[in-house]
Amino acid sequence: MTPKENINALRQMMQNEGWDAIVISGTDPHSSEYLPLRWQVRQWVSGFTGSAGTVVITADHAGLWTDSRYFIQATAQLEGSGIALHKLGMPDTVDYPEWMAANLAEKATVCVDGLCMPLATVQHMQALFADKGIGVVSRPDFIDAIWSDRPALPGAPAFELGVEYAGRARADKLAWLREAIAAKGCGAILLSSLDEIAWLLNIRSSDIAHTPVVIAYLWVSAERAVLYTTESKFDAALTAALAADGVALAPYGSIVESIAAWPNEAPIYIDGAMLNYALYEKVTERFGAAVVDATSPVKLEKALKNETEIQGFREAYRKDGIVQTRFFRWLEEALAQGERITEIDAANKLISLRKEMDGYLDESFAPISAYGKNAALPHYSATPEQCSVLEPRGLYLLDSGAHYLDGSTDITRTIPLGPLTEDEAFDYTCVLQGMIALSMASFPRGTRGCHLDILARMPLWKYNRNYGHGTGHGVGHVLCVHEGPQGMRQNLLDQPILPGMVTSCEPGMYCEGLYGIRHENMLLCYEDEANEYGDWLAFMTLTCTYIDTTPLVEELLTEEEKMFIDCFNTSVYETLLPDLTPEEAAWLKTKTIDCLFEPEELEE
Amino acid sequence: MTPKENINALRQMMQNEGWDAIVISGTDPHSSEYLPLRWQVRQWVSGFTGSAGTVVITADHAGLWTDSRYFIQATAQLEGSGIALHKLGMPDTVDYPEWMAANLAEKATVCVDGLCMPLATVQHMQALFADKGIGVVSRPDFIDAIWSDRPALPGAPAFELGVEYAGRARADKLAWLREAIAAKGCGAILLSSLDEIAWLLNIRSSDIAHTPVVIAYLWVSAERAVLYTTESKFDAALTAALAADGVALAPYGSIVESIAAWPNEAPIYIDGAMLNYALYEKVTERFGAAVVDATSPVKLEKALKNETEIQGFREAYRKDGIVQTRFFRWLEEALAQGERITEIDAANKLISLRKEMDGYLDESFAPISAYGKNAALPHYSATPEQCSVLEPRGLYLLDSGAHYLDGSTDITRTIPLGPLTEDEAFDYTCVLQGMIALSMASFPRGTRGCHLDILARMPLWKYNRNYGHGTGHGVGHVLCVHEGPQGMRQNLLDQPILPGMVTSCEPGMYCEGLYGIRHENMLLCYEDEANEYGDWLAFMTLTCTYIDTTPLVEELLTEEEKMFIDCFNTSVYETLLPDLTPEEAAWLKTKTIDCLFEPEELEE
Repeated sequence: MTPKENINALRQMMQNEGWDAIVISGTDPHSSEYLPLRWQVRQWVSGFTGSAGTVVITADHAGLWTDSRYFIQATAQLEGSGIALHKLGMPDTVDYPEWMAANLAEKATVCVDGLCMPLATVQHMQALFADKGIGVVSRPDFIDAIWSDRPALPGAPAFELGVEYAGRARADKLAWLREAIAAKGCGAILLSSLDEIAWLLNIRSSDIAHTPVVIAYLWVSAERAVLYTTESKFDAALTAALAADGVALAPYGSIVESIAAWPNEAPIYIDGAMLNYALYEKVTERFGAAVVDATSPVKLEKALKNETEIQGFREAYRKDGIVQTRFFRWLEEALAQGERITEIDAANKLISLRKEMDGYLDESFAPISAYGKNAALPHYSATPEQCSVLEPRGLYLLDSGAHYLDGSTDITRTIPLGPLTEDEAFDYTCVLQGMIALSMASFPRGTRGCHLDILARMPLWKYNRNYGHGTGHGVGHVLCVHEGPQGMRQNLLDQPILPGMVTSCEPGMYCEGLYGIRHENMLLCYEDEANEYGDWLAFMTLTCTYIDTTPLVEELLTEEEKMFIDCFNTSVYETLLPDLTPEEAAWLKTKTIDCLFEPEELEE
Repeated sequence: MTPKENINALRQMMQNEGWDAIVISGTDPHSSEYLPLRWQVRQWVSGFTGSAGTVVITADHAGLWTDSRYFIQATAQLEGSGIALHKLGMPDTVDYPEWMAANLAEKATVCVDGLCMPLATVQHMQALFADKGIGVVSRPDFIDAIWSDRPALPGAPAFELGVEYAGRARADKLAWLREAIAAKGCGAILLSSLDEIAWLLNIRSSDIAHTPVVIAYLWVSAERAVLYTTESKFDAALTAALAADGVALAPYGSIVESIAAWPNEAPIYIDGAMLNYALYEKVTERFGAAVVDATSPVKLEKALKNETEIQGFREAYRKDGIVQTRFFRWLEEALAQGERITEIDAANKLISLRKEMDGYLDESFAPISAYGKNAALPHYSATPEQCSVLEPRGLYLLDSGAHYLDGSTDITRTIPLGPLTEDEAFDYTCVLQGMIALSMASFPRGTRGCHLDILARMPLWKYNRNYGHGTGHGVGHVLCVHEGPQGMRQNLLDQPILPGMVTSCEPGMYCEGLYGIRHENMLLCYEDEANEYGDWLAFMTLTCTYIDTTPLVEELLTEEEKMFIDCFNTSVYETLLPDLTPEEAAWLKTKTIDCLFEPEELEE
């Protein structure tokens, strides 16, 4: 069916049911970032393939609300669909809940799939709709009526991430969680975030591309725990291991009815920002007002990586460093020999090299392999139909990452393929200065990401230049490549950066139609000294892939910045050396040791 | 009466009235920072002279809650009073509302003077008290029963700040306000912040030390405006001028009863963070739920200085620059001649020099004149009893400011009186680097003070050093020396720094028992270029007092920092030259032009 046909079919349904609007948020029941096909409803309905957006259909309007990353893409993909693009962030655009509040009639009815919308989103709409008496009804899976070949739940096997990788036994995590539940005066908790469940139970799977979680809900009380999931994914050994820790399995869909049987003597703990509205309705039927809606305690605990996880991250970055040394060497030599290499060829080569590494599970996201002006789109995605050939000039940007059993990576390097313009070299230098400034920061406990973010921007702001995305995000340990609760961005997020957090540092600079630059390292926050002025924290870089220094404008760099680059590249070389062939080692030496700013000083 | 006697008398009153606790917040009906004697109730009751704190008295406990600025002072002043010190900000201290919620019995009654407590504070208590059914009663001026010689309202004359200083006519401001009221769907507004009223009506007085406002409330509807104030302060001409703009006078105290007669067809606009609870009670009696509680629109409008005000600030800083040139020259020569000069002598000399300037009204706050280890207390106040003699070594800190008819100043300089230790010179340099970094910042529209604050701290954080106060505050135009809505501090305050805002930049470094350093300039935000990356804003320094460069550790400074200092000191010299005697000019030249880092380059 075409988007036009889908919208007509949905309007027919609206008329039959007496709905005045339908909202398709395009998430799954777990507020996930990456979705199995079954829940890619927004894409199926509209044809829009971006990762963020909401479709609203009324009798006389169909609209897609999305942000600036997708304006160009959405314009192209919505052509002829009859769906209007609402550009979020533009001065005249109101978001879809406000748009509905303004445009729907009094006492209108809005239908949502309550499974695919978190409680907090529905509550936000309800608050905006109250004045006009507009109601929200939840009809789980209403799309089934028109999506006849809708895919089923994926069924890849689940496996245990052993304590040698996870660093903390499942029983220990469950005991900790039970204390946290009790501290809130609750008798149980309902977890619905897939990465929280996977972290807590030390289980993983491959149901969803790039996110090795298991599709499930988890209910934990003081005595029991039930994992609602596709039971066939669990073999006998894993089922027994879970049972030994008091975790029983139950069918995924059975949670809807089983809530009515949960003990309700004590309040239940939910996280309304993540829990879907359909389950929340069942929870309130059972618990009434005895519901504590607060951020899940797992969210922060999971972000504070333990020593084993940190060691695993180091190992993952070491592996990625080897992979990228091989990749960049291959690229340089192939281009020198005049081979025809497209952006997709390059990405495929990288992935094939990664797959050779021990413990490789998956890419942690689809690589962004972008040459020249394509790199000016921060979320560029090459397709076989639209894909540039790499040429021996200008800049090539590669943003990629992997999940290994040890840990997960996310790294961006921008490298010169030949001569650069003055602007390219200048911006390359400023962006790197931003990455270095944040990497070298020392700050007292209590400092938020929104305080630190500016450090990565100042070298660009100095010249009235800027990038339109955040500076950094948390990274899960063999989980989601984007995880909270911390962030490194301008939003006034009240979450301090704490020891054990692993956060990316990825300033960039994008010159439309010409080039794009991004340098991304991964930073581990650790405790430095405590003195009368505070408890001091700092960052350690986990990334182990060399920085190409040839484009750098040396006059712009301070001695400290040169020292940082020298130390970093020396450390990359020394760390990777044991695992490289002599030819690879010789090549990496030309990119690192042979390019130091102050070779004598470092050799002392 | 002694604090002990006061507390006994208050406990007697509590028993007679059936109150379980009394809260004395120690502010006035207008949430002012500086108070006339009449409203210095906290000080009268407790003997504590700090500018912030709350006293709570129950049957068996009397406590003062205050912050770290006053721990030492409060400990001394409360000795023998029977009042316990609760140290806010310490890990184990809960604030007084939480303390009462925990320590009072169910259904207890808490008495406050509703005139001297803003609505928002009472609402916060009520929310905390709800679970235990604890009630809050307001008894305006209950202290009258035991404070027999309580001072009356001050009666200094009011005067008009002409449009040649204010830059905008009263009628124009009233028309703007009426649009803002209508935009909120309201029929009138009740203003209670003294500086907002003074700004709106272009009136000033000298009722309160350091804050040239008029004690008043202002009610503005679409057709009328009534200023509730001490009418005898207004002469016939000013009364007529106000009447010509539709502003009638009424007795200050009559507002309480007149609210019942205000038109109530449309909702009324109040600012519950500032409006006292006693008036709010009357407002709800009259308007019921038709009350819009939001930040006063005057708050932001007043902070965006117009061209005349900006020119006035420049003029005020020029005058202050002359004063301080004379002062520092006098100090240097007096010390060289072996004169005995105390911290108070120095402050008095400065004030006497200021009084010679045209248009001088008042100090904008009591000068902080602090030598050596005294300067390590950021809010040090020398007294005749406790006051150091300046010696020809170490650092002297002078934080002071004035109100001139043109504008208001706030400036800190720390100067060497002789040889310094290495630590003193090092910290002197780092603190100045922080001031320079913030002063030179370029940033896109939308940037908050909590984003920029870190720039002033980084040169100290680099060495795990810090200061415990905010970096900057707004400054009123011949109004409060501390004004909002913007701030330059770590708190996640959602207020962008906007063109026209005048904000201090005052990093410091305090080494207990040894020395204190603070450098403070005043920054005007202005619009720089707009390009595809944003609307760019930057700062211009208004301050015109030289920076002593002799303590600077040159190796720590970048070329850019040296250039900033050179340009600043050159500009100070050139701006002040026309008004200095030849001897003064020669002396200032030795502090500026003769000390440039790169004299040749600047002379080209």
